[in-house]
Amino acid sequence: MTYLLNDASAFAQEAVLGFAAANPQYVTAVHGGVVRSTETPAGQPALVIGGGSGHYPAFAGWVGPGMGHGAPCGNIFSSPSASQVYSVARNAENGGGVIMGFGNYAGDVLHFGAAAEKLRAEGVDVRIIRVSDDVASNTRENHRDRRGIAGDLPVFKIAGAAIEAGAGLDEAERIAWKANDATRSFGVAFDGCTLPGAEEPLFHVPAATMGVGLGIHGEPGIRDIPMGTAQEVADLLFEGLMEEAPAGRSGRVAVLLNGLGRVKYEELFVVYHRVAERLSEAGLTAVAPEVGEFVTSLDMAGLSLTLVFLDEELEQHWTAAVDTPAYRRGDLRSLDAHAERVPRKEFYTPGEEQVPEASSESQTAAASVQGLLERFAEVCATHETELGRLDAVAGDGDHGQGMVLGTRGAVEAGLKALERGAGARTLLVHAGTAWAESAGGTSGALWGSALTAASRALSDTSAPEEAEGVRALHNAVEAVQRLGGAQPGDKTMIDAAVPFARALQDRFQAGEGFSAALESAAAVATEAAASTSELKARLGRSRVLGEKSLGTPDPGATSFALLMTALAEHLGSLSR
Amino acid sequence: MTYLLNDASAFAQEAVLGFAAANPQYVTAVHGGVVRSTETPAGQPALVIGGGSGHYPAFAGWVGPGMGHGAPCGNIFSSPSASQVYSVARNAENGGGVIMGFGNYAGDVLHFGAAAEKLRAEGVDVRIIRVSDDVASNTRENHRDRRGIAGDLPVFKIAGAAIEAGAGLDEAERIAWKANDATRSFGVAFDGCTLPGAEEPLFHVPAATMGVGLGIHGEPGIRDIPMGTAQEVADLLFEGLMEEAPAGRSGRVAVLLNGLGRVKYEELFVVYHRVAERLSEAGLTAVAPEVGEFVTSLDMAGLSLTLVFLDEELEQHWTAAVDTPAYRRGDLRSLDAHAERVPRKEFYTPGEEQVPEASSESQTAAASVQGLLERFAEVCATHETELGRLDAVAGDGDHGQGMVLGTRGAVEAGLKALERGAGARTLLVHAGTAWAESAGGTSGALWGSALTAASRALSDTSAPEEAEGVRALHNAVEAVQRLGGAQPGDKTMIDAAVPFARALQDRFQAGEGFSAALESAAAVATEAAASTSELKARLGRSRVLGEKSLGTPDPGATSFALLMTALAEHLGSLSR
Repeated sequence: MTYLLNDASAFAQEAVLGFAAANPQYVTAVHGGVVRSTETPAGQPALVIGGGSGHYPAFAGWVGPGMGHGAPCGNIFSSPSASQVYSVARNAENGGGVIMGFGNYAGDVLHFGAAAEKLRAEGVDVRIIRVSDDVASNTRENHRDRRGIAGDLPVFKIAGAAIEAGAGLDEAERIAWKANDATRSFGVAFDGCTLPGAEEPLFHVPAATMGVGLGIHGEPGIRDIPMGTAQEVADLLFEGLMEEAPAGRSGRVAVLLNGLGRVKYEELFVVYHRVAERLSEAGLTAVAPEVGEFVTSLDMAGLSLTLVFLDEELEQHWTAAVDTPAYRRGDLRSLDAHAERVPRKEFYTPGEEQVPEASSESQTAAASVQGLLERFAEVCATHETELGRLDAVAGDGDHGQGMVLGTRGAVEAGLKALERGAGARTLLVHAGTAWAESAGGTSGALWGSALTAASRALSDTSAPEEAEGVRALHNAVEAVQRLGGAQPGDKTMIDAAVPFARALQDRFQAGEGFSAALESAAAVATEAAASTSELKARLGRSRVLGEKSLGTPDPGATSFALLMTALAEHLGSLSR
Repeated sequence: MTYLLNDASAFAQEAVLGFAAANPQYVTAVHGGVVRSTETPAGQPALVIGGGSGHYPAFAGWVGPGMGHGAPCGNIFSSPSASQVYSVARNAENGGGVIMGFGNYAGDVLHFGAAAEKLRAEGVDVRIIRVSDDVASNTRENHRDRRGIAGDLPVFKIAGAAIEAGAGLDEAERIAWKANDATRSFGVAFDGCTLPGAEEPLFHVPAATMGVGLGIHGEPGIRDIPMGTAQEVADLLFEGLMEEAPAGRSGRVAVLLNGLGRVKYEELFVVYHRVAERLSEAGLTAVAPEVGEFVTSLDMAGLSLTLVFLDEELEQHWTAAVDTPAYRRGDLRSLDAHAERVPRKEFYTPGEEQVPEASSESQTAAASVQGLLERFAEVCATHETELGRLDAVAGDGDHGQGMVLGTRGAVEAGLKALERGAGARTLLVHAGTAWAESAGGTSGALWGSALTAASRALSDTSAPEEAEGVRALHNAVEAVQRLGGAQPGDKTMIDAAVPFARALQDRFQAGEGFSAALESAAAVATEAAASTSELKARLGRSRVLGEKSLGTPDPGATSFALLMTALAEHLGSLSR
């Protein structure tokens, strides 16, 4: 259980502050997490690694020369919000773009993705690496759809070293994906962990058994088998990984034996004793093996074994020097850039969002966008109860409330931006951020990203052309699709958004004006949203939303149709 | 609990082997523990740090440049045996003498002390540092009689850095004691740990309370108080330490917040958040603070706070570079001696004990000593049952058996040494080692050390003088007193040994011959042993043996008297 806390709701934040207080030579706490406290070379890509709290030393413990540039720290086992990720990335970015690295979980995909949208809208090049090392969570063919567990360490270590060695964004992204594709982990759990303030663990493993294929967020194993000796556990994990050993392997592997929290060091060494035998029998050389706690899950009892099948390039970066609060290795002479660590003086804090100079044409367009946001807020207020009722069938019933809070937040932010002279593009970025923050949850993140993505089609210098309006809406839908990870038929907002975007583009390309095309597309969306009541949920297809009950329209698709209808009306009234 | 093991009795040994397998660039497993796998500079004092297993990263995790030279690894929570310590120290020693460092516990004092006796008998200068940082275990005035807990880390870190910086044995010993005297720790426990193979924890802390003043061997706290918030726990620990803050402090402190095993990192950081506030309010600057798991106690739930009140010298060594499997810090450029780490090729393994060339006079004396050992073995065999019966009153009844096994082992080793041409001194050293190994337990360690200490008065080159015989016995009794830590009246072997040694010296100085003086002294010992039946055990005085029941003679004192009587008879028969 968690013994030491003040207030469960403040636990993760206090932990970040305590961590930063203990490591001032490495990190500084900023909104949303930590970044390096020392200057980084201008033009160096920033490796921003993160996820929920409760996994220390992952991820904040790995911020420092040779590894991470910053770490957004979410609540316990929860993805950081898009604004947390954005804040940390903004702080870490120094002219070389951003590589975001996180374990492949729906929440992280969504929120890191939303932050990436915003950074891209601001002109920052962002690449995303989803670590997917857990062999128990999907098939070999679908390696990149697996969950990320302890493989976070070697993937981020290798990516960080590549950047330290001078890799640019493309090169660092390539190496990071290559590391991920060479990395396999497999674990077992013996008992669950307890969230701060909770009385009971998230799960128990039945006595005398162990859960094979654990997760790192308190997920129990995928199946329970009889408890084994240390040697049997070592054999199980080793054999599970060797099934996926690549044919052309070099014979050299990075090895990580990771304790989840309550399995102690001596136990890990007893297991490693056997792992070393098996490696040797298999003709494999362990390169700089690591045995200890690297990616924990509070006080969960369990362990995982990770192998990275190395080639020369991966080995070079795996063994390179690194100097972070929780992970230090090698001869720091190789980190010449850091011989003199210069304390950094200035940090970005939210609330100082910039408003680039805008032309009067774009300011006029911004006022029109603001009018649209106000219309959105009215529509949501009108339909709040109905949307809540639809959501309550299969969800927690807060969709209506979320849409109201989100649109209200967007209106307020838009107003402020207008007062500061923002153009259309900047207004949309500010409104998108505020929507996500104010609404919270999945739909807030998706709508926030939609607005941010839409902004990229507009500018602060000229009035938007009709084609730009089409592209803005196309971008918005694409962002929702990319971030949410849902497919048409999963009974989500996508079921209305995709037909909408297709219809809009078809009509516009067929020569209809923007306003008319939009009106047709909104009608398509409305029909599609209604027909989600008949869609069969495709179980397991949607990573974000899971199973939905049948017979009622999806609330997300419904609200999308409502707002697109309002958009069409708003545009129609403007052009009249 | 311990989830991963093969065979509980092999657990600690398998852990050491696994640890060494995972860290070949740092350590090599030798009999009894690990030593550095790379060459050390000739003439550099060797820092040999250890204790029981179950405390990782203490102690093996700290072997490497800038810190330890070797670590004897005992069984879980048990001191390494004298032969383990000896083997590791022999391996680590490279012409500069040895500093032995361990937490101040009776078993460690005994076994490290016994190994030190043997090394000294071989001409190696050995210094002993007993870490005693736990403020809950004794008064401020008796700081050096306190237990050692997490203070092991800073004391050994500082001593290792001083050695790395070129300190000789005297200087390193001085700095190590200075570090110990500047170090204070205070802890609380929330739940006990479970030994490998056991079903139940060693203790439970009552619900909603915490045990203040925990030990690191599963000892519960000294008193239970209501469970506090993280902030209250931080305040309790901080205030407990600040009561002992030295008046002339520099305002700079090394800080260590140590988790015992099951309290996780995020919790420690929440506590540290408050500790940092308190340090700041108190005008103290935390120098290179450490928050994590450093001296664990298997899966015990608890934590401790350590402060080292630094001066310039201590700070220099605290912040110096170090590179070990579990503790790395600073810029390794300062470790120039280790720029090229040269793998070490040769290691000492027991069984190869040297037999220095001996004169025929000393060989004759050795044969006489061998005869005495055989007489000892006969006496013990004769009295085995009686000694067992005396021991069963207040002990585990194995004293008779231990004496039989010990003397038998000594006889066998003596015989082998004789065959290899050993002189008297070497024969006694070999016999002492074998006695301790064969007998095990406290009395085995004490008798083994007694023989080893006695040997220092003899030589391999000349026949012993009578005065040397007196000195040999004096040395033996002194070693027992020093290692056992008991005082006269504690109802131990000392109650017979001290009057014996005094009588021997008095009679010899009064002009009686050695043989006659010995006969008188043996009579004094016999009388003293008998009178231990009337001694009141002084509760709490004896650190080693604790309370003894009244009314029966102490078995240790009795066997001492028996053997000294046999010695006197043996010597008498030789001189006749």
